[in-house]
Amino acid sequence: MHHPLDNIVVVDLSQIYNGPYATYLMALNGATVIKIEPPGGEPLRRRSEAGNAGLLPFAMLNGCKSSIVLDLKTDDGKAALRALAEKADVVVENFAPGVMDRLGVGWETLSAGNERLIYASSSGYGRDGPYASYPAMDLTIQAMCGVMYTTGFPDRPPVKAGPALADFFAGIHLYGAIATALFDRERTGRGRRLEVAMQDAVYASLCSSLGMHWASGEAAPPRTGNRHGGLAETPYNVYPANDGHIAIICVREAHWRALCKLMGAEPLSDDPRFSTQKSRVAHMDLVDSIVSDWTRRHTKEELFDRMMAAKVPCAPVRTLEEVMHDPNMHARGALAWQDHPEFGRIIVQQTPFRFDGVPLVEIEPSHRLGADTASILRDRLGLDDATIDRITATAS
Amino acid sequence: MHHPLDNIVVVDLSQIYNGPYATYLMALNGATVIKIEPPGGEPLRRRSEAGNAGLLPFAMLNGCKSSIVLDLKTDDGKAALRALAEKADVVVENFAPGVMDRLGVGWETLSAGNERLIYASSSGYGRDGPYASYPAMDLTIQAMCGVMYTTGFPDRPPVKAGPALADFFAGIHLYGAIATALFDRERTGRGRRLEVAMQDAVYASLCSSLGMHWASGEAAPPRTGNRHGGLAETPYNVYPANDGHIAIICVREAHWRALCKLMGAEPLSDDPRFSTQKSRVAHMDLVDSIVSDWTRRHTKEELFDRMMAAKVPCAPVRTLEEVMHDPNMHARGALAWQDHPEFGRIIVQQTPFRFDGVPLVEIEPSHRLGADTASILRDRLGLDDATIDRITATAS
Repeated sequence: MHHPLDNIVVVDLSQIYNGPYATYLMALNGATVIKIEPPGGEPLRRRSEAGNAGLLPFAMLNGCKSSIVLDLKTDDGKAALRALAEKADVVVENFAPGVMDRLGVGWETLSAGNERLIYASSSGYGRDGPYASYPAMDLTIQAMCGVMYTTGFPDRPPVKAGPALADFFAGIHLYGAIATALFDRERTGRGRRLEVAMQDAVYASLCSSLGMHWASGEAAPPRTGNRHGGLAETPYNVYPANDGHIAIICVREAHWRALCKLMGAEPLSDDPRFSTQKSRVAHMDLVDSIVSDWTRRHTKEELFDRMMAAKVPCAPVRTLEEVMHDPNMHARGALAWQDHPEFGRIIVQQTPFRFDGVPLVEIEPSHRLGADTASILRDRLGLDDATIDRITATAS
Repeated sequence: MHHPLDNIVVVDLSQIYNGPYATYLMALNGATVIKIEPPGGEPLRRRSEAGNAGLLPFAMLNGCKSSIVLDLKTDDGKAALRALAEKADVVVENFAPGVMDRLGVGWETLSAGNERLIYASSSGYGRDGPYASYPAMDLTIQAMCGVMYTTGFPDRPPVKAGPALADFFAGIHLYGAIATALFDRERTGRGRRLEVAMQDAVYASLCSSLGMHWASGEAAPPRTGNRHGGLAETPYNVYPANDGHIAIICVREAHWRALCKLMGAEPLSDDPRFSTQKSRVAHMDLVDSIVSDWTRRHTKEELFDRMMAAKVPCAPVRTLEEVMHDPNMHARGALAWQDHPEFGRIIVQQTPFRFDGVPLVEIEPSHRLGADTASILRDRLGLDDATIDRITATAS
């Protein structure tokens, strides 16, 4: 069974979401990922607010990885990391800039014995700019990068987006940069140091809002709820169903006419107030209220089925429970059930990359903290039992 | 000047945001990208709602690419595409599943003459599941994938996230998959067909919410505005400044104590109502109102400077105007001014991948529609003048 990253060895010091998503995708594409954690485990493993809210995310991002514990404040720990990096293809970390250097295990040190090493870092604002030292969490990046400013209803304060998009945009860009460096190394024989800033990874996703802001001479509304960003199309909103909500977007006249027919209100499409996009926009509140009067009498899935059949672009606002059990993702193997030895029966995600002729890997449950410390130190580094005992003792 | 994707030729049929972001990153990393558009241009070039709101996004995503116009409904157009693909490394498209096959220029056809070809597709739900035919726009994917459900205030309907995150998550995953296939081809000599579904590309970013949902036995609130998703930490919110808003996140006791000191309210940190995370959470509204009374007397940048000095995690909620002129991104060259021949002076984005020893490319402005049709058909395919005239005539 061939996978694109077969035989690539990744030493993974990353934590929480950003780096771990990059290395999880590497593992699902065939790489051997050795996750190095500090004594006590990385922050996501330790996260216990809101009950056990960190458990599922940890399991979702750390399957198919080994777990070893090294105390990088000890000489043994540093030596073991250096030795692992010497035989690795990629080192990944997402500490604040400067942390690895201060520990004495930065790029210069780790690449000294391995000119093919790819050393990949991600941080909030990059290591060389005026914001390098600012704390970067998903939420602060959302505030700094325009995500909050453009999200929410106009009569309410800016609001964060639900997904941890800054972390995950950075993580998948980091993956892209690493894969690019691996390709480059095949042609040049040399590894490289690379980095991705969360701030850079988010910027392009705001291009619609940036475009409206720029084209309007800064006059575009910052937030329009679920309405079209330029308030230039309607129906275009989230409407109430009798069991939730449904998003409807009539981009073309044909969509509007089909919707009128479904609503049993065909005369509306000839009414001069509603016969063109421009006239509808002038009566946007009325349009929204007419559509709402219809949608609220039906379930979101009923509405969805009927509008799909009539080719009106729409989608039900699915709950998290529905999202986890999405029939399309389960049918395609994009989500899979897993019997996790610590957490029970959970749902984990497959790689979003699908290559013809490459089978999906079986997703091995995330390992217990340090489960592989002794075996990796022995088999990969050939350390003797005394050293291994010393390392595992400090590490527990 | 070495760039990682030097000499890689990309035939780019993609449109709007998803595919074009992937190919833009390829161009910024050294690839030669030939953008093929239908007569009249791809939808983003034609998009004119809300004034010229599509111009900046088009310029942001299509610099450093050639533009050629082919009418794929004509035999000449199809033949030219097949000939281009025969000499290319990568073909990228994000039409609805089946469109390329129906045009007679799908994977089987294009790869027939080029076993090293990588053929990359992205669609909303993938080509092989029960949702394959559903219309996929950023907004419908946000509805379907839990983004809306988890975004907004609890007393208001679900709301879309401002960024086009579904499009861009798909685009950067598509880049990652293509880079992976390029690496794989170096070792196997063979290209592959690959695909990325927008739905798959978004899922992992919801892992915090999924984790809380799962750990709480479905009891977690779907949306908490700007408060902690599990309502388990405070101060954790967006607070009013006298000129906007600021996000503050006190994760540790030290953060709260430092904040109390800044507010001139040190006794609060000893008050039993506020002395532990748990007691503060029990008085969350009161905590938020105390913090707001302080923040609303200052500007967001003043607050930011003072809290950074005191090591309280926070960030100003920046406006789009501020985001476009972000000093950190401009200092790092992540954003650059460009004199665009059609659109005037604009700000464009550099690659978020930074490789040591690899200089940033100069970002060439996006080309006019079809600017390179004749030269590419002549120089790359060696077509004669009569054929070129015929193709450019149909295409204009």
